[in-house]
Amino acid sequence: MIQSVAIVGGTHGNETSGIQLLRNWQKWGIPAQYGELSVACMLANDAAIQANVRFMDEDLNRQFTPARLSNESAAKEAVLARQLNQQLGPKGQSKTDLVIDIHNTTSAMGATLIILSADEFHVQMARYVKQHMPEANILLEDEKPVSEHGYLCTTGKRGVMIEVGGQPQGVLKEEVYQLTEALAHVLLGFCLAYNKGKTATLPECEVYRLGHEVSFPLEDNGQRSAMIHHKLQDADFAPLLAGQPVFKCFDGSEIVWEGESPTYPHFINEAAYARLHVAFATASLVTL
Amino acid sequence: MIQSVAIVGGTHGNETSGIQLLRNWQKWGIPAQYGELSVACMLANDAAIQANVRFMDEDLNRQFTPARLSNESAAKEAVLARQLNQQLGPKGQSKTDLVIDIHNTTSAMGATLIILSADEFHVQMARYVKQHMPEANILLEDEKPVSEHGYLCTTGKRGVMIEVGGQPQGVLKEEVYQLTEALAHVLLGFCLAYNKGKTATLPECEVYRLGHEVSFPLEDNGQRSAMIHHKLQDADFAPLLAGQPVFKCFDGSEIVWEGESPTYPHFINEAAYARLHVAFATASLVTL
Repeated sequence: MIQSVAIVGGTHGNETSGIQLLRNWQKWGIPAQYGELSVACMLANDAAIQANVRFMDEDLNRQFTPARLSNESAAKEAVLARQLNQQLGPKGQSKTDLVIDIHNTTSAMGATLIILSADEFHVQMARYVKQHMPEANILLEDEKPVSEHGYLCTTGKRGVMIEVGGQPQGVLKEEVYQLTEALAHVLLGFCLAYNKGKTATLPECEVYRLGHEVSFPLEDNGQRSAMIHHKLQDADFAPLLAGQPVFKCFDGSEIVWEGESPTYPHFINEAAYARLHVAFATASLVTL
Repeated sequence: MIQSVAIVGGTHGNETSGIQLLRNWQKWGIPAQYGELSVACMLANDAAIQANVRFMDEDLNRQFTPARLSNESAAKEAVLARQLNQQLGPKGQSKTDLVIDIHNTTSAMGATLIILSADEFHVQMARYVKQHMPEANILLEDEKPVSEHGYLCTTGKRGVMIEVGGQPQGVLKEEVYQLTEALAHVLLGFCLAYNKGKTATLPECEVYRLGHEVSFPLEDNGQRSAMIHHKLQDADFAPLLAGQPVFKCFDGSEIVWEGESPTYPHFINEAAYARLHVAFATASLVTL
């Protein structure tokens, strides 16, 4: 049974759509149809929200590994993570049945649900979301055990992320806000349906399973020699085939995709990953 | 005659398209067809570029008023502005015939040339740009004398800005890069044509003349009660008529435009103006 749910915005302080949704739900209350659930609304990183930055010292959404939670780092987000872990978790013995952490991205990923496991619960959730919001994408990041992820949502017994784009950092677009709200509604609706045993026999659905990160090509001096090709820009989750252009080099040449099977690029040109020179991530299509 | 031209990128450290164009032109040289001109390529705010932020202490592109240039502020950008003013200007007695300062915006403004005066030189420039790049927008900001503007480009005898969008801060989109490069080419081409006396008889063109800023509606607690309506988002420079929706309120209601004559909104939902709660700027259509 899913009884206690925490919905979190502002884990990254410049991702406005979750922040605004939480402010609105804090002001007007969670929609009445979810009254059977115990839903807590929370803004995670007030300092970063005030400063309109992703984080003050370190990325909050990478702090929730067992190793980091048990060290004594004085970085603002490390301290905050230990507080949030007590409030929402503690991780591994959590008092919260489900943590829903809301993000947005500069990539044109539309409404995306990120799940960290293909266990029975999350399979049912994925199928329910695809049935009730067919335009939503499901991204499965199960490259390591859930507990080893550093994500804030792993403080819950179960945890997922809403990721919607494209939206510049610090900007609120109505389209992104509406998709965020719609997906949050679907997830709360899923909790009700799951509790009533109505989600066990949903039809299978296709999800994107995270592959690996692809980096921008760099010069010897560490600066980029290319940008995302305009044909790849905003083509998140569209199949990318061998021979299709991926990068436009500043010398005028092009770099094409050389993978043998189609991949499903996402987080294309995400601003927050620019510092690491991550151009996009790959995914394969799998059926749950 | 236009002999010495300075092209500047990175006045704002997270506006990547100008930074990248300048890096490429520094590496490979200014295209040969502009060899008659003396063109200097410059990145203005290295610290902000390294930090991938708009500015470190204060907005560099507001520092170049006579008052600010003559004070002793120790803010990083105030110090930098005094250095740049010696290098490019000094303002009012400049050694540089034309300063072209390259920016980008999260607003969907396409390729936009910002001019600060409708004097004969800039009228010819505007007409030339519209003739050679009809998709470009010309924005005239002549609400005060050129010398009173705080823009970096006012260090030149003449100064203009390239402003291209939409592009998130810290992200480089090929489409925006190509428009930026194309407009820079057109401006250098104009300098050659102007020097040969070929620009005096160009046909008239329409430009957008800056009106005023429109703010987001705020609650008593200072937080926003509305977002840009999805019908206005990305509709920069499209005519906005009385009765058309402007804001979507979080209570579900809408706020419509009440101006009597059509206005031409731009800088719609620009991230850098979010802190000041500026929703967009208005403009009227005038013929030069």
